[in-house]
Amino acid sequence: MEHILFGAAYYDEYMPYDRIETDMQMMKKAGMNVIRIAESTWSTLEPQDGIFDFAHLDRMLDAAEKYDIHVIVGTPSYAIPTWLAKKSDTILAITNSGKEIYGHRQNMDITDPTYLKYTERVIRALMEHIKGRDCIIGYQLDNETKHYNTAGAHAQELFVSYLKEQFPSLDKFNLEFGLDYWSNRVNNWADFPDIRGTINGSLAAEYEKFKRLLVTNFLHWQSDIVREYKKPKQFITQNFDFEWHDYSYGLQPDVNQFAAVQCMDIAGCDIYHPSQDDLTGAEISFCGSIARGLRKDNYLILETEAQGNLEWLPYPGQLCMQAYSHLACGADSVMYWHWHSIHNSLESYWKGVLSHDFSENPTYLEACKLGHELQEYGSHLLHLKKKNQAAIMVSNDSLTGMRMFPLKSHGDSSYNDVVRWLSDSLYRLNIEFDVIDSTETDLAQYRLIAVPALYSASEDVLIRLNDYVAAGGHLIATFKSGFSNEHLKIYSDMQPHILKDCCGIHYSQFTAPKNVRLEGKGILSACTGTATDWMELVIPDTATTLFSYVHPYWGKYSAVTYNHYGKGSACYIGCLFENATLDSLIAHLAKDMELMRPDFQFPLILHKGINQFGKQIRYYFNYSGESHSFVYDAADGTSLLEQQAVAQDSEITLQAWDYKIIESDY
Amino acid sequence: MEHILFGAAYYDEYMPYDRIETDMQMMKKAGMNVIRIAESTWSTLEPQDGIFDFAHLDRMLDAAEKYDIHVIVGTPSYAIPTWLAKKSDTILAITNSGKEIYGHRQNMDITDPTYLKYTERVIRALMEHIKGRDCIIGYQLDNETKHYNTAGAHAQELFVSYLKEQFPSLDKFNLEFGLDYWSNRVNNWADFPDIRGTINGSLAAEYEKFKRLLVTNFLHWQSDIVREYKKPKQFITQNFDFEWHDYSYGLQPDVNQFAAVQCMDIAGCDIYHPSQDDLTGAEISFCGSIARGLRKDNYLILETEAQGNLEWLPYPGQLCMQAYSHLACGADSVMYWHWHSIHNSLESYWKGVLSHDFSENPTYLEACKLGHELQEYGSHLLHLKKKNQAAIMVSNDSLTGMRMFPLKSHGDSSYNDVVRWLSDSLYRLNIEFDVIDSTETDLAQYRLIAVPALYSASEDVLIRLNDYVAAGGHLIATFKSGFSNEHLKIYSDMQPHILKDCCGIHYSQFTAPKNVRLEGKGILSACTGTATDWMELVIPDTATTLFSYVHPYWGKYSAVTYNHYGKGSACYIGCLFENATLDSLIAHLAKDMELMRPDFQFPLILHKGINQFGKQIRYYFNYSGESHSFVYDAADGTSLLEQQAVAQDSEITLQAWDYKIIESDY
Amino acid sequence: MEHILFGAAYYDEYMPYDRIETDMQMMKKAGMNVIRIAESTWSTLEPQDGIFDFAHLDRMLDAAEKYDIHVIVGTPSYAIPTWLAKKSDTILAITNSGKEIYGHRQNMDITDPTYLKYTERVIRALMEHIKGRDCIIGYQLDNETKHYNTAGAHAQELFVSYLKEQFPSLDKFNLEFGLDYWSNRVNNWADFPDIRGTINGSLAAEYEKFKRLLVTNFLHWQSDIVREYKKPKQFITQNFDFEWHDYSYGLQPDVNQFAAVQCMDIAGCDIYHPSQDDLTGAEISFCGSIARGLRKDNYLILETEAQGNLEWLPYPGQLCMQAYSHLACGADSVMYWHWHSIHNSLESYWKGVLSHDFSENPTYLEACKLGHELQEYGSHLLHLKKKNQAAIMVSNDSLTGMRMFPLKSHGDSSYNDVVRWLSDSLYRLNIEFDVIDSTETDLAQYRLIAVPALYSASEDVLIRLNDYVAAGGHLIATFKSGFSNEHLKIYSDMQPHILKDCCGIHYSQFTAPKNVRLEGKGILSACTGTATDWMELVIPDTATTLFSYVHPYWGKYSAVTYNHYGKGSACYIGCLFENATLDSLIAHLAKDMELMRPDFQFPLILHKGINQFGKQIRYYFNYSGESHSFVYDAADGTSLLEQQAVAQDSEITLQAWDYKIIESDY
Repeated sequence: MEHILFGAAYYDEYMPYDRIETDMQMMKKAGMNVIRIAESTWSTLEPQDGIFDFAHLDRMLDAAEKYDIHVIVGTPSYAIPTWLAKKSDTILAITNSGKEIYGHRQNMDITDPTYLKYTERVIRALMEHIKGRDCIIGYQLDNETKHYNTAGAHAQELFVSYLKEQFPSLDKFNLEFGLDYWSNRVNNWADFPDIRGTINGSLAAEYEKFKRLLVTNFLHWQSDIVREYKKPKQFITQNFDFEWHDYSYGLQPDVNQFAAVQCMDIAGCDIYHPSQDDLTGAEISFCGSIARGLRKDNYLILETEAQGNLEWLPYPGQLCMQAYSHLACGADSVMYWHWHSIHNSLESYWKGVLSHDFSENPTYLEACKLGHELQEYGSHLLHLKKKNQAAIMVSNDSLTGMRMFPLKSHGDSSYNDVVRWLSDSLYRLNIEFDVIDSTETDLAQYRLIAVPALYSASEDVLIRLNDYVAAGGHLIATFKSGFSNEHLKIYSDMQPHILKDCCGIHYSQFTAPKNVRLEGKGILSACTGTATDWMELVIPDTATTLFSYVHPYWGKYSAVTYNHYGKGSACYIGCLFENATLDSLIAHLAKDMELMRPDFQFPLILHKGINQFGKQIRYYFNYSGESHSFVYDAADGTSLLEQQAVAQDSEITLQAWDYKIIESDY
Repeated sequence: MEHILFGAAYYDEYMPYDRIETDMQMMKKAGMNVIRIAESTWSTLEPQDGIFDFAHLDRMLDAAEKYDIHVIVGTPSYAIPTWLAKKSDTILAITNSGKEIYGHRQNMDITDPTYLKYTERVIRALMEHIKGRDCIIGYQLDNETKHYNTAGAHAQELFVSYLKEQFPSLDKFNLEFGLDYWSNRVNNWADFPDIRGTINGSLAAEYEKFKRLLVTNFLHWQSDIVREYKKPKQFITQNFDFEWHDYSYGLQPDVNQFAAVQCMDIAGCDIYHPSQDDLTGAEISFCGSIARGLRKDNYLILETEAQGNLEWLPYPGQLCMQAYSHLACGADSVMYWHWHSIHNSLESYWKGVLSHDFSENPTYLEACKLGHELQEYGSHLLHLKKKNQAAIMVSNDSLTGMRMFPLKSHGDSSYNDVVRWLSDSLYRLNIEFDVIDSTETDLAQYRLIAVPALYSASEDVLIRLNDYVAAGGHLIATFKSGFSNEHLKIYSDMQPHILKDCCGIHYSQFTAPKNVRLEGKGILSACTGTATDWMELVIPDTATTLFSYVHPYWGKYSAVTYNHYGKGSACYIGCLFENATLDSLIAHLAKDMELMRPDFQFPLILHKGINQFGKQIRYYFNYSGESHSFVYDAADGTSLLEQQAVAQDSEITLQAWDYKIIESDY
Repeated sequence: MEHILFGAAYYDEYMPYDRIETDMQMMKKAGMNVIRIAESTWSTLEPQDGIFDFAHLDRMLDAAEKYDIHVIVGTPSYAIPTWLAKKSDTILAITNSGKEIYGHRQNMDITDPTYLKYTERVIRALMEHIKGRDCIIGYQLDNETKHYNTAGAHAQELFVSYLKEQFPSLDKFNLEFGLDYWSNRVNNWADFPDIRGTINGSLAAEYEKFKRLLVTNFLHWQSDIVREYKKPKQFITQNFDFEWHDYSYGLQPDVNQFAAVQCMDIAGCDIYHPSQDDLTGAEISFCGSIARGLRKDNYLILETEAQGNLEWLPYPGQLCMQAYSHLACGADSVMYWHWHSIHNSLESYWKGVLSHDFSENPTYLEACKLGHELQEYGSHLLHLKKKNQAAIMVSNDSLTGMRMFPLKSHGDSSYNDVVRWLSDSLYRLNIEFDVIDSTETDLAQYRLIAVPALYSASEDVLIRLNDYVAAGGHLIATFKSGFSNEHLKIYSDMQPHILKDCCGIHYSQFTAPKNVRLEGKGILSACTGTATDWMELVIPDTATTLFSYVHPYWGKYSAVTYNHYGKGSACYIGCLFENATLDSLIAHLAKDMELMRPDFQFPLILHKGINQFGKQIRYYFNYSGESHSFVYDAADGTSLLEQQAVAQDSEITLQAWDYKIIESDY
């Protein structure tokens, strides 16, 4: 790619009347250069079994070529046509809620041979038809692929085979998963019960892990097919998404994206986020950092909101601010879902760039401004390389583990709540971070690694963390980390198992805090807080106490500790508390690491990196409705969009929801 | 009918011991003159397949004749006997929740041929047996008939036939319903998927419309059977009910009552409402106005509460007040559900006139007072003719549409909440209104038509409204009106489509209001409010702004506008706000229309009409626990119940929960 | 038994590594003398159909004998192995939610012949294998047995047979259950519909009663088998539990424990309760009193919390306090669930005496202190005999009735909420009480009987209560008592039916209180309160009013009345109100009965009884975080644990969560 991709998903199929020429002209006027097509349209592409109709596709490709617009083509496999649902009784998935019913997308069993046979055929037919097209820059495999909770007979047979392979010995299997409990022991693989009923958290978690493997396998399988046809310059990507809280929130529970991405050329994702007064940039930064971490490279924003949902209609200026926020995190594209607003069905109120009336509206007009800026200055923003000194370590298994044993008031989002608790604090403090998987072995590249609730971790992982600290790294680990192994079997020695070495603490009891305040010690003595949801009764061995509990009986235990270990240090956080207290703690820990600028905090946010010209790009954002000023402390540079010189140490004032992009030599 | 019908549902079948003589004597003492029987008693009427037992029925008819009490006989079809449920696998309905299970009433598939065969037989047997009886004044078809969400194979086949007939072209069908979205296209009618899974709001709404048609057809079919037997003077009615919010709340979602009533001689309904401190009369008025509007004539209250539910036990005086409220709206009957209180099963705490002990109680004693008043003065209250200058336009399709795309904090009741928001304001301001269906063509009879959230409307309807204004009518239309067509396909030109002419505005964006205040303009500048749930960013074209938004970014848009168009005017309301603000707005709009008396508002309520003697009847109610006074401003008249003269301009004081009925010449 | 049993449930099967020697040594160190084993371990006991493996069992019995520890062996029938679930389609129960799925325990149909066949075989094999063992002191039948809502074809056939036997006449059956309502009449037993759909509260309640009978029959059947093998000195018990509110709360809805216990030698139960600041002792006392009442004798605590759930980790001292609270109520054992904390599956966070690390922790160390005290002084605390002058009458049928017709804000726990409302007041006032079933005939032994919400009661029961008062008893009965008969058929004469004689009141109306205050009369004129949820409009006949309603319309009715009847008195409470008001009322009623000490109330609690040496044992507890003092008013005695003399009239100060056990002659 030679420029920032700017565009939208486009569906000729959905139009109430012929719009294609007008739409392409409106896109060109907006400076758009890419459309994404075809990912939801199997029923128009193959209206009946084996009968293909490429009319819509050809129209869009022809128009794209006429107007010099790039195209990303999605395989249509995640939304099956009506006729396919009737081909076999096994296509629609069986889940914990019973048999799927046709209507919504993502209703099929991705292990079903019939489904796979038809999917392969439609992908090959599609690829064969379009493979000569020059406007196509890449392919998207499926869309927001997941396992759809498949739990039918076929998937369960595969699971038992998968277990058998891992555990040739039934005795070891029963022991590792603790199946003697409540008489759940499996004494013969043929007795293996329906996994949907299990009350064994370890077994349920293993099935979740297995289902994530199904997703990886499915995407690799599709990738192999597409790769047979694609041209060398065309990329393969996927539209990954995130744990959903009415917006993109955290690590995706149902996909191991770090494994799945291996079959692709570039990571892609969709990020949706609150806007208006609730626009903070935190989701753009956190989810973007996951996407950047998948291949340790730039990534594509394949979908984000234009007008979006009712609450998201951007204030004037926010559409641009949002786009630059993505680029500041390393995205190489900003693509809206979607161009127009749909006149029927489920997502009629998830609005695109255009409203239902197809006329120019304030959002479209702001996209025009943005498009022209990107044409003018995009080359300075493309392929931004980031080198962060901090990282957040995440783990699908720990996420699953925390769903099995959640924090009471956090439920299914327990894990991501702890992750976001830590990562949002780094974000507010302007400590830019990478997101790394717990399998990451090159930890030494980071000065600081934050480890939220690493509930399920093999001893390998824990040893690596210990070694990282010994070698000079700085660790921040929270409660519940290192508690159970990769099968959610709780370690049977003193907690926190291997981490007690680097952390210099131990504990064997924990409880729910009621009216438990926190009191900072030493240099943190001005800090206070309140423990919520969970508290470990931590006993320092070699560590010093940073926060202790204020309570008639638990007052003798530590809430937060700090330990020098080898050449590094480890801070252990034994409970959950307020954001402001966490910010004080992390600012204190980070102040000697040169990771942050003490006077520059949210709502002012700085993202930086090196552009393809070797220049430093700094994005300064003001995520608030009030103006804020700060001193620009980097080398003399140029404010890109305004093309104004900016001298070192000059004061910059950002108005409400304003930003500045400064290019400088260092 | 020659007198107000006053009575109760009576079930000889349910009595713990033989009560019939005593009960009839107690009814006579209470001045009651009618019982409603048989509508829930198929299992006693036909205890086994083809074996009929009319013993209970005969006992009740004999007693009624002995005591000179009228009888309304209901067909027993809505509650099938145990043996019938076992006759065929297809009788119990299949719904979105799966197969019905026997127990509750209304569990059958009203399209099932076996059910219909047995229903026809029992109705014919019943009619044959009782057709000679003089005490019977009318027949009720079934009871609270609905479609019971039938979605079995047979009903779905009928639906596909219904669609085929509407859409000979599959392409047009797919286009109109937008089925290309998410690959839902139907390329062959045989592929038509189970409607229960659809995520297409248009298709789901069409199925709702189709199910309402099933109800209409079912009632017409029953009516044809009953009409073969009934005597000329006997009427046919139905017990319609309303959207249920633990009481009768709004337009019935599952029945097109305007269509269904066409096979009947008089509309009937049940109205239940809060009582004690929560008695406002609003439900009696609103639901009564629907019933009155069905045939544009007087109607029957076939059920209302006596003691009712736990919260409804009337304060002393309220039983009478409630009864007169019904009559004031045009009811020709007040019938309680039910005479006694049931000793077993589900509704034991939905109490009748008598408690479980069958003794005289305060509610019964108040009914006695009422009964004697009706005997004395009922002829002055019967057949009250009302001629209202205002109307509320309602639409089942819009109700369904707002269920598909609800206001966030209103959910399934979004539509009726907007309807009641408007209608309750008219009620509080004492602007008496009719309720008209959106298919109504004679709009010119009204000075004011209020159109709440007419989300789904054909162009015909919208053109009629436009023309109505042009011809001198006054329109008040809210947000979301005119947004989508009769198939919930959103109009693809500028909103609010055709209504933008009469309203003189347009908009293409909307959002959720957060901290958005409203500010009145000009003469309304003293008015303020707060936008909730929904706000359209309205741009006046020829309209003037009555309220604008107070917000840093949305402040340039209008919240409420007013437009002169042709000989009339249209007010457009772009968001939801407080009742008091709405009252101010409507009072302002109505003040030149002579629709209301500015100094006479809720809790004082006035209902009026012309009685069969050509006299004016005015009911004055005080729906509050404090006394209120007002000046009687009509012609000299007579206070009916007290038989006292009331001079024009005299002051009348109503005590807590008190009322006065005044008859005068004009 | 010759000493207090002190120990824990032990599962060699669940251990991550071989622990048995270490664990037994740690138990001995803690003074423990009993383990409970085998009740959840069918899958290790019989790993495949007919193949038995007693290795774990033998290991545990060998170790127990080596370390002189008693053993209670549970039959393993409540948690079936994987292979058994596959033996027959009828083993997993069908309930209102459909077919059970394997995984959780208690998923089987306890009426299924195949299940029963295999259960009998495994019990016989187990008993045969262990019957010679001297360390076994008793057997536990199954565990927390219930009916698991079985509603499969076989259970329903049994139900119809059970009804047929009760009602040879279908007419009487239909009349008694009021089945004519909504056409539910059964005219032929073959038509009997699926009970799961019934909307008839009487019929649904009868099915609940029938299912309780299934539990009784199942336990009697198991008892007969075990009794064939057991030695004379070995006891048979069951682990009964209670209505569960995240802790043991009230009467068990699904078991008639008074009937089921008849096949056993001693009652056993588990009691779990809030701890930390929420430890009140009320659950220990109330549930313990049920257990004591079952056989009118001492009982076993077979399970209670050690560390327990997250919120329950005891404060220092509370583990001992909790144990003595059990003994003070008549328990002869304190056994923890469980010894260690489980490393996999559902209950990993329901922690035992040891944490997952198996090391000594504060809870274990406190257990050691306790164990040694029990060794030293246990003989003085064993077989404590209690003779209470007050009783609470409970009724499974009334519990079910109140589930059918609940108090609005209490739902399914309506009955137990009223029971606990009364019993907790007695508890706070230090009026020790027995819990008696409504079938109890020896009422004369009590001076005071409290009857909460006895909604379903045969005339026999009501006549006994009437006679009890006439003969000099004192009755406190609440609203809804005596309202319906044993089949939930509401009595059709004046309410409260037979109780209106002793209570000297009647009522025929009731309503929901809104803003209704209560005003004490006469000596209670300083008392006020607020009616909640339910209020009967009570009219005193011979009674005097203790509280009346303060309300413009209901003010003329009584809320609480008091009546002299024969030689006794009856207080009727017509509504629910605040605890403090109830305490004042009961203190007033009880003050002449010498049941309580006016200056000694919660958080100070006194439990007393006679030990096996004929001495008086008084337990004084301070259930609070502040110290409290009181005057010891009994005979000179000895403070047991401290072995200090305590003189009559000396002042005793109890620190936070402290207690004192004093032995004296009288």
